[in-house]
Amino acid sequence: MIHVAVMGYGTIGSGVVEILEKNRETITKRTGDTVNVKYVLDLREFPGTPVENKIVHDFSVIENDPEVTMVIETMGGLNPAYPFVKACLEAGKHVATSNKALVAAHGTELLRIAGEKNVNFFFEASVGGGIPIIRPLYTSLAGEEIEEITGILNGTTNYILTKMDKEGETFESALKEAQDLGYAERNPEADVEGHDTCRKIAILTAMATGHEVDYEDIHTEGITSISDVDFKYAEKMGTSVKLFGSSRIKAGEIHAWVAPVMIGKDHPLYSVSDVFNGILVKGNMLGTSMFYGSGAGMLPTASAVIADIIEAVQNRNRHVEMGWDDSRLAIAPTQTSSCRFFIRIKGIAEERLAEVLKVFGDVTVIELDHMDEFAVVTDVMTEAEYEKKAKELSGIRQRIRAEV
Amino acid sequence: MIHVAVMGYGTIGSGVVEILEKNRETITKRTGDTVNVKYVLDLREFPGTPVENKIVHDFSVIENDPEVTMVIETMGGLNPAYPFVKACLEAGKHVATSNKALVAAHGTELLRIAGEKNVNFFFEASVGGGIPIIRPLYTSLAGEEIEEITGILNGTTNYILTKMDKEGETFESALKEAQDLGYAERNPEADVEGHDTCRKIAILTAMATGHEVDYEDIHTEGITSISDVDFKYAEKMGTSVKLFGSSRIKAGEIHAWVAPVMIGKDHPLYSVSDVFNGILVKGNMLGTSMFYGSGAGMLPTASAVIADIIEAVQNRNRHVEMGWDDSRLAIAPTQTSSCRFFIRIKGIAEERLAEVLKVFGDVTVIELDHMDEFAVVTDVMTEAEYEKKAKELSGIRQRIRAEV
Repeated sequence: MIHVAVMGYGTIGSGVVEILEKNRETITKRTGDTVNVKYVLDLREFPGTPVENKIVHDFSVIENDPEVTMVIETMGGLNPAYPFVKACLEAGKHVATSNKALVAAHGTELLRIAGEKNVNFFFEASVGGGIPIIRPLYTSLAGEEIEEITGILNGTTNYILTKMDKEGETFESALKEAQDLGYAERNPEADVEGHDTCRKIAILTAMATGHEVDYEDIHTEGITSISDVDFKYAEKMGTSVKLFGSSRIKAGEIHAWVAPVMIGKDHPLYSVSDVFNGILVKGNMLGTSMFYGSGAGMLPTASAVIADIIEAVQNRNRHVEMGWDDSRLAIAPTQTSSCRFFIRIKGIAEERLAEVLKVFGDVTVIELDHMDEFAVVTDVMTEAEYEKKAKELSGIRQRIRAEV
Repeated sequence: MIHVAVMGYGTIGSGVVEILEKNRETITKRTGDTVNVKYVLDLREFPGTPVENKIVHDFSVIENDPEVTMVIETMGGLNPAYPFVKACLEAGKHVATSNKALVAAHGTELLRIAGEKNVNFFFEASVGGGIPIIRPLYTSLAGEEIEEITGILNGTTNYILTKMDKEGETFESALKEAQDLGYAERNPEADVEGHDTCRKIAILTAMATGHEVDYEDIHTEGITSISDVDFKYAEKMGTSVKLFGSSRIKAGEIHAWVAPVMIGKDHPLYSVSDVFNGILVKGNMLGTSMFYGSGAGMLPTASAVIADIIEAVQNRNRHVEMGWDDSRLAIAPTQTSSCRFFIRIKGIAEERLAEVLKVFGDVTVIELDHMDEFAVVTDVMTEAEYEKKAKELSGIRQRIRAEV
C-alpha cells in the first residue's frame, strides 16, 4: 500500500480524493498496489466528509512521516506551496502538482532536487487541465524536434471570446457572464491579461526544448482590448479571435508570446470553443497534432493528477527523466516575430486606401456597413516593421495579429 | 549502444531509419544511449542507399544475433510478420511494430510472450499513424474508466468522404482520385469496406478494457453505399458523414462497430477532414478528449515507431505493463445498439408523411428540390427496432446512423 498526502482540499484536491475512491479498482489494476490517502493538509476542517479524520493543519506531520512516500499538491500559489513541495522532495517523497505558478516559477529547482533524491516531480495537471500534454511531450513525442506549440490554454478567456464571437456580446458583458457562472474570478486579471496562459506556455516551451524558460521573458498581451467591433469584422471574414500562447522554434531561435490572434476556419484550433482548451504541436517528423479537451474543471484536472500518481507509483524506485535543465532558454526579441496584422483604421476605405497601400504595401480590405472606419489585413511583417509603418498612418484603432 | 534490426524497408521502415538519423541528437538525449540500425531485413537490395550494407535476406541472422536486442517490424500483413515477431520476442528481443493486422490478430499472444520474456511489445503506430493514442491509454488515461472511444481511423475513406462532402463528387470519382494520388490502393477493399478501421477499433477497445477483442466480433460496414445524394441532404442539414470505428462501454456492456455516421458541426470529429485522423476518448472523470493528427504517411507513422523505440530503450531491462489479457471481451449484439437513423424514402413527403409517422413515430423531415424522394431523421431506437419498422415501410433507399 502506498500512503499519500493531499495538500489543499479545494476543488482539485477533493477531486483527486474522489477519483482515488471512485476508480479504485482501475487504479489498483494499473499500479499493482493500493493508494491510501493518509493525510489531507488544509487550514479548514471538513466534518462529515470522507476526509474528516485525515485532516492535518501542520505540514511537519506529512514531512516527517516516512510512511508517506508521495504528496499531491493542489493548494495553488507559491506560498506555502513552494517551501512545502521543496521540503517533500528533499525528504525523498514523490510529488504530483496541479500548480502552474509553482512549476513556472520553481520547476527547474524542483526537477533538479527530484533527480538528486531519485524521486519524481510530475505536473501533468498544471497545463491544459485534463488534456494529456506534458506526458506526450516526454513520451510519445520524445523523438521529435518540436517546431511549434500553440495553445488555447485558458478556459476563462476562451469562454469570453466565444461569447463575443457567437453572440455578439461586448467584452464587459461576456466577462460578467463568465463571473456569474464561476468561470472567471472576481479579480479576473490573471486570466484576461494573459498571465495564466503565459505560465502555461512557459512550461510547455521548457518541456519542448529541455531548457529553463523564464515566463517573464514571454511577451504577454491579454484580451481586454478585443471588442465586439473586431468580431463584426471577424464574422464578415469568416474568422475568429482566440487567445494563443505560442512557441515557435526555428533554426535555434525561439519566439514565444501570448496574444489574441485572428484565425480562419481551417486552423485546427478554430473550433475549440467555450471553456475547452486545445493544444497544437508541430514536430519535424510528425507534422501537426492537436490535443483537445476540458482545460479546467474539478474532475478533468484531478484526473491528470491521478495519471501522475499512477506513473509515480509505477516508478516509485526510480526517477523518470523528464522536464528541463537549468540552462536558460533565450527567447528572441518580440520585435523580430513575424505575422500578418488585422488593422482597423478611421475613415473611409475609398478615400484612405492609397495612403494605406503606400505605408503597408499590399493589403486585403474589409468594409462593414454604416461604419466610420474600415479594416485591412497586411502581408507578413515583423513586429518592428509593423510598428515603424503604423507610426506613418493616423487613425489606427486596433491591431490584432492574424494567421489567416 | 543499442543495436536494432528493421524488418521491412518499405515506406514506414525507411521512415524509421530516416528519423533515427535526422533526430539522432534528440533521441540520444532522451534515451541516454545511441540506437544503431545493424540489419535491415528485406527481399530487395537497396544499392546506393544508407542501408546498402545492412540488408539481410535471412531472418535467422537477426534472430540469432544476441547483440540485436530490439526489432522494428514494418512489413505489414501476417506472414511472415507473425512468425518473425513471435520468434524475436521468444529470443528475448523487444519489438516495436506498426502492423495493425498483426496486433489485432495475435496481440494477445505476443503481449503474453513479451511479459514472460521481460521485454516489450509496443505498437503505437498501428493505430492513428502519428497520433499518440495507444500510449496515452496506458499512461495519461490510466486512472480513467473509459466510456467511449470513437475514431476516424482511416485516412483513405476520410479523404473520399471529404471530397464527396466538399466537392459534391460521387463515391466512384472520389475513390479514383484517391487512387491517383496514392492515398487508396488499386484494391481498396480493406479501406472502403471498413476492415482497416475494424482492426484499429479492436486494438483500441482491447487497450481501453484490458481484455482481448476478436475483431471479427465487431459489426463492420464500409462507405461504398454512401452516395453524392446523401451529401446533398447533409449539406442542407449542416451535417457530414464520417466513417467511425466506435466502442461504447456502459454498465459492463460493450458496443463496438464500424459504420458511416451522420454527424453535426458540434461533434468534435466534424472538422477532421482529408487524410487526417481524429480519435475521441470519453473517460468517466476526464470527460471528452480528442486527439487529432496525421493518421498515415511515412514520417508521422515512423515517428510513432520512434516513440516506441525510445520507450523500449528506456525500459530495456523491464516489461512495461500495457495491453490486455487473454480473457475475451463479449461484444453486445449489434441489434441492441441504439442511435437515430437518417432515412431516404421514395415519394413525396406530403403524400407519405402520415405513413412514415405511423411507422417511425416522431421524425424530422428534410426535402430537397427536384427530387422524387425525401429524407427523415428518426428518434433514437435500437438496430432491431429499426429493422422491424423498416420492413413496414416501402421505398427506403438509404439508411445511415445519425448522431445529430
